[in-house]
Amino acid sequence: MAKTYIFGHKNPDTDAIASAIIMADFEQQTGNSEAASYRLGEIGPETQFALDHFKVEAPELLNDNLADQNVILVDHNEFQQSADSIADATIQHVVDHHRISNFETAAPLYYRAEPVGCTATILYKMYKERGFEIKPEIAGLMISAIISDSLLFKSPTCTEEDVQTAEALKAIANVDLESYGLDMLKAGASTTDKSISDILSMDAKSFNMGDYSTHIGQVNTVDIDEVFARQEELTKAMLETSANEKYDLFVLVVTDIINSDSKILVVGPETDKVGKAFNVELENNTAFLPGVVSRKKQVVPQITEALNEVV
Amino acid sequence: MAKTYIFGHKNPDTDAIASAIIMADFEQQTGNSEAASYRLGEIGPETQFALDHFKVEAPELLNDNLADQNVILVDHNEFQQSADSIADATIQHVVDHHRISNFETAAPLYYRAEPVGCTATILYKMYKERGFEIKPEIAGLMISAIISDSLLFKSPTCTEEDVQTAEALKAIANVDLESYGLDMLKAGASTTDKSISDILSMDAKSFNMGDYSTHIGQVNTVDIDEVFARQEELTKAMLETSANEKYDLFVLVVTDIINSDSKILVVGPETDKVGKAFNVELENNTAFLPGVVSRKKQVVPQITEALNEVV
Repeated sequence: MAKTYIFGHKNPDTDAIASAIIMADFEQQTGNSEAASYRLGEIGPETQFALDHFKVEAPELLNDNLADQNVILVDHNEFQQSADSIADATIQHVVDHHRISNFETAAPLYYRAEPVGCTATILYKMYKERGFEIKPEIAGLMISAIISDSLLFKSPTCTEEDVQTAEALKAIANVDLESYGLDMLKAGASTTDKSISDILSMDAKSFNMGDYSTHIGQVNTVDIDEVFARQEELTKAMLETSANEKYDLFVLVVTDIINSDSKILVVGPETDKVGKAFNVELENNTAFLPGVVSRKKQVVPQITEALNEVV
Repeated sequence: MAKTYIFGHKNPDTDAIASAIIMADFEQQTGNSEAASYRLGEIGPETQFALDHFKVEAPELLNDNLADQNVILVDHNEFQQSADSIADATIQHVVDHHRISNFETAAPLYYRAEPVGCTATILYKMYKERGFEIKPEIAGLMISAIISDSLLFKSPTCTEEDVQTAEALKAIANVDLESYGLDMLKAGASTTDKSISDILSMDAKSFNMGDYSTHIGQVNTVDIDEVFARQEELTKAMLETSANEKYDLFVLVVTDIINSDSKILVVGPETDKVGKAFNVELENNTAFLPGVVSRKKQVVPQITEALNEVV
């Protein structure tokens, strides 16, 4: 039987790593004994906390060329977020919760997408439909992925299904959702050990918004001031990157995972429009945004609209 | 509640029409009372036979602009096979059994694809997962779609799941699969009463294959010679259409549903590559292809490969 490579997106977060491990277990239960999980990048401290807690080994780093190999994608579909050789692979299955874009196959395949907060929530449903056993460590990884993507159920991307899935799994995984979840999020939220470049690149995405090229990074923290103590260095690096990459706007969203607020740092010629996007006056290129935690739902659409507004 | 438009591909076949009606029933059962089925073209005689047998009305022809409307696609995903305004619609759900290509969304959605022989087979599974009632006419449409797409289970696209689904439904629909199936296929297979334009358009799809724009029609018959008696007229019309639509290649696949063979008619500047695709020498722009009945598995991949081969 040919090998099946299973992996999540580049710059993997907890859902990308956990869902790859879970999907490999699912495939094993269908009889695909050659299914194995891989990762496309380094394991972050939040994910490592979850792996350690449930005594699961990290997947191997993918180095193989995937030409004509069987692959299963989890937690992504856009080729620019996937393995470099993905266009030459035989994609057999995708399980994901994102929009579909820059994705195509030559042949029919399994594709399972649902607009929920986390890929692991869909995987849980697939286990239930097939009557498969959910082992304690698999339940633990599902919970970890849901808590990570939903910031402990506080993100507006979190659905009722995500909450119910975590509730249904907590007894199997033997964890208290609140205390385990907060410990896990805190493990990934220390910024003092991170370089300026780490902070700016760890979860950053580029967007074309009408005529404007924007770049929006996000970093989780338990102490917003800890990050802004390095505002001067951050600004310098953001200006340099913007000049090199020709961004009209570079926004860093620093999110307080305990209180569910964010503070943004903004650089670029279109800085003034970001204030309008959130109905605030920027002070020293920063603004505090109470209740904002989701880039996808609470930052990107607002800035897109402000940039495209006809004055 | 906003309306939900549900439809299959252009030049609808029995699966495209039946799956739209079935999906509308499914949505109604989920509580979406504004879900309605539509069609993107004329109903063929095979499909009409099935609708008449199970006393179901044909869906309305879609004429509305879909900009910002909620839509569900069945039995297709490629935009060039869909409604003209599909790129501006809000696609909420796709249920399909084809490859994914030229498809994208701005937001997360439900997408359910499986590499089975028929969309209705996937819909049957969705009913079972939710415990929804399958009414006799819905069971009849599911069976009709499966028999149509699988040419009475003879096509290489037919899977064990398609066969089992039809078997499980025959008592609910109260039909004998063999006799009903053959009657339905024959109803759609008479070509003497069809115009040249009918034959070329009744089940024709466009494909982007690398740099080439191709168009591949298929017509079922019980007498291949009956169709090729009109080869001169067919060729003329295919050349005209190719000029107007800028196709590099137009292939008509004439399939003998009794003996499970096909004969192809080919026009366009890339005609020579089609011979290579099937390892045959075209004679008078035609070739007999023994055992070929499936456009999806036995025609499209072979031509795609031949067109993209580096000489």
